[in-house]
Amino acid sequence: MAARRLKIALSYDGHPYFGWQVQPGLPTIQGTIETVVSQIEGKPVAVAGSGRTDAGVHALEQVAAFTLENPIPPANLKKAMNRLLPRDIRVLSVEEVALEFHPRFQARAKTYEYRIWREEVCPPFLRHYVHHFPYALDEAMFCRAARLFEGRHDFSAFSAADDKDELGGSKVRQMFEAEGRREGDRLLFRVRGSGFLKHMVRLMTGGLIEVAKGNLTLDRFTALLDPAPGDKQVHAVPAAGLFLISVEYSSEPA
Amino acid sequence: MAARRLKIALSYDGHPYFGWQVQPGLPTIQGTIETVVSQIEGKPVAVAGSGRTDAGVHALEQVAAFTLENPIPPANLKKAMNRLLPRDIRVLSVEEVALEFHPRFQARAKTYEYRIWREEVCPPFLRHYVHHFPYALDEAMFCRAARLFEGRHDFSAFSAADDKDELGGSKVRQMFEAEGRREGDRLLFRVRGSGFLKHMVRLMTGGLIEVAKGNLTLDRFTALLDPAPGDKQVHAVPAAGLFLISVEYSSEPA
Repeated sequence: MAARRLKIALSYDGHPYFGWQVQPGLPTIQGTIETVVSQIEGKPVAVAGSGRTDAGVHALEQVAAFTLENPIPPANLKKAMNRLLPRDIRVLSVEEVALEFHPRFQARAKTYEYRIWREEVCPPFLRHYVHHFPYALDEAMFCRAARLFEGRHDFSAFSAADDKDELGGSKVRQMFEAEGRREGDRLLFRVRGSGFLKHMVRLMTGGLIEVAKGNLTLDRFTALLDPAPGDKQVHAVPAAGLFLISVEYSSEPA
Repeated sequence: MAARRLKIALSYDGHPYFGWQVQPGLPTIQGTIETVVSQIEGKPVAVAGSGRTDAGVHALEQVAAFTLENPIPPANLKKAMNRLLPRDIRVLSVEEVALEFHPRFQARAKTYEYRIWREEVCPPFLRHYVHHFPYALDEAMFCRAARLFEGRHDFSAFSAADDKDELGGSKVRQMFEAEGRREGDRLLFRVRGSGFLKHMVRLMTGGLIEVAKGNLTLDRFTALLDPAPGDKQVHAVPAAGLFLISVEYSSEPA
């Protein structure tokens, strides 16, 4: 059989999982998908993702890819995967792509959204899907500071201490759009960028909250985007409020 | 201390619970609330609800009441309860009412909504909050049949075999409004009535689905509302799609 490369779009509830990446003995998104695809193929199949998501982080749309010899048509593969997967992971689409397609190296942009619940009582149905923060915040400042992430910056101050410096050590990334806004009882931070460091969106949101609490001036906040070594002034907000919204590819081989 | 009667409005995610009613050794909504209220009062307190909800059934707004000697102001009681309760049960409001207030006997109307997800893929975030039914249905017939529940009928054909006949054996109830409608990818059945028998809304929805599948004509469906003994032609749909929306009281003692 000729090898075929399949690109899939997925949505998942990150709450029951220890993140995307395979970890022996722990339930992960990647591990769960590999089990199901390997079952369909009849032998072990490795699944590559567009990037990792941390434990508890959700995806409206994540992209992954794998290589099969099984000639199953894409529409049937989607059905078979959804039959075998737990209901907290769903395959949204399947398409055949060029053999050299890699969902991480060819990703051109990713969009994340962080969701903060501002009312005193958080609806029970949202408890795993928002960060409940009902305390005083200057939301106009939150939104003003959010815009400052746009452009090309060194995000060292907004990356985990143990980040593995995947792009040869550079922590420079480009943010195409970054916006804070109120939507009903939720305060949202949405950011579209060329790539993201470990914990980056949760640290960015943590920084915006420090500004909105009055703990960090806009000047000091701006200075964090061109950081001196040792700057560590922001803390990551919880994983539950974070959603990977979409992954974009420029010229998709087909 | 003088005894005080407290009326509370609650919202809960029914998925982790074995229904409303206390059952020894099993997590229930009533049991969880009684534990918390008893902890605040410093001795056992019984909590009465407006009615039971089955295992897995949710509430946007359920009403309950209990009697305390503790003089804690209602606003503080709400905060204390929400601090002690798990995040899947939330107290929405607390008010002091007349000592004779009973949330079940004085309820004038209740509204339930049943939610059916009609698309091929059910979003992972909704898996516990809708009934996923992507198969062919004549939804116009579903909505037409839903209207037929309005008025005063004998709902024997839409009650569980082991229903305890709480109103002296009568299974006659009045439905003030009953409506089916499409909202985005969801087909909804909403019904407001004087009272509901065990499993009644799930059996009503099951009946509507039989009509919409073409298995039950409108004539035979209508005949079920004036049932001959032994009529059992409908099956209950799963609990996950059912929400108690609100409970109404006529003249609330204050």
